[in-house]
Amino acid sequence: MINVIPPRSGVAFTIKAGQLLKVIDPQGKQVADLYCFNQHDFSEYLSSGRSLDYNESVEFGCGSKLYSNYSNIMFNMIEDKVQSHDFLLTPCSKDTFRHFYPDEEAVPGCYGNLASAFSEYGIPEHLIGTTFNTFMHVELDAKGRIKVLPPRSKAGDYTVFEAKMDMIVGLTACSAGQSNNFAYKPINYEVLDKKR
Amino acid sequence: MINVIPPRSGVAFTIKAGQLLKVIDPQGKQVADLYCFNQHDFSEYLSSGRSLDYNESVEFGCGSKLYSNYSNIMFNMIEDKVQSHDFLLTPCSKDTFRHFYPDEEAVPGCYGNLASAFSEYGIPEHLIGTTFNTFMHVELDAKGRIKVLPPRSKAGDYTVFEAKMDMIVGLTACSAGQSNNFAYKPINYEVLDKKR
Repeated sequence: MINVIPPRSGVAFTIKAGQLLKVIDPQGKQVADLYCFNQHDFSEYLSSGRSLDYNESVEFGCGSKLYSNYSNIMFNMIEDKVQSHDFLLTPCSKDTFRHFYPDEEAVPGCYGNLASAFSEYGIPEHLIGTTFNTFMHVELDAKGRIKVLPPRSKAGDYTVFEAKMDMIVGLTACSAGQSNNFAYKPINYEVLDKKR
Repeated sequence: MINVIPPRSGVAFTIKAGQLLKVIDPQGKQVADLYCFNQHDFSEYLSSGRSLDYNESVEFGCGSKLYSNYSNIMFNMIEDKVQSHDFLLTPCSKDTFRHFYPDEEAVPGCYGNLASAFSEYGIPEHLIGTTFNTFMHVELDAKGRIKVLPPRSKAGDYTVFEAKMDMIVGLTACSAGQSNNFAYKPINYEVLDKKR
């Protein structure tokens, strides 16, 4: 079943070890921030730093692994049509909007949307760290400066993540114009059993 | 007063808003992992992702700001003899040692040392995220691959951080050979009042 995340919103759901999460960009050039917790121990959560460390790369794509703060694999990326994602930057919050978009209304952003979604499972928002920003296109120049560019995903592109533990997953349709090429589109996702 | 952090160990201490933290590499080519919490609210802590986002760079040096997960400035970097640090990688834990140094005994690493030090203040270890790795020399190649190289710090080099809130700070002398050029030296630090 394909689930739709409306523009500028987020959801949380459970996934069992062995199941697959397919994150789909139905219209192209949209970003989905992904975060997750061990369903049985919320002190174990997705860790950008551990994942960068063990993958020895800031680039993620098919074959990359997403690790927890306790060094366990949470997701394997087993299929990826885009091969361009970001795992450096935190999800935008109201404060981020005030910083980068001072002329706009400060919306909850992916951080606020994830906080609301995870709160339904009793997870406090301060445990939300750096998200895996699916389809987000970030480039570093030779001086290490960060540039956020329009996503490379085309309509219908997707990434498939294989769950390696039981988890509560948060997923968003990006709210920040610079990240999604000022289009604010929806994101689709499916939770699938491995043997299709 | 100069405090000495012996090789492969860590400490935690308080600092008041306005005070300065001077982190010194007394012998050169050593790394000091830095992490911090708002002294009055442990749910506010150092955030690599927010800092990368607001500095718009993966390079940190004099003039850079270290932000919390709640988008507040925790430290300003006001003096820096090295201009080469890392804010991507998590502190090594026993699991990191098993991953990268399978032939060595798995020591607590900077993560374990920070966990012990922060526990004296009642801070649980799962709140320790990506540290600011003072003097750590990390390079990214054109494909985004991460290389850990010997630090650029020379004997006596230092970085001065100005505290922007009351904090509990954890600081280590690095335990990982690849990061400290296999020398395992001490780190010195001072907490100073601003008007010297």
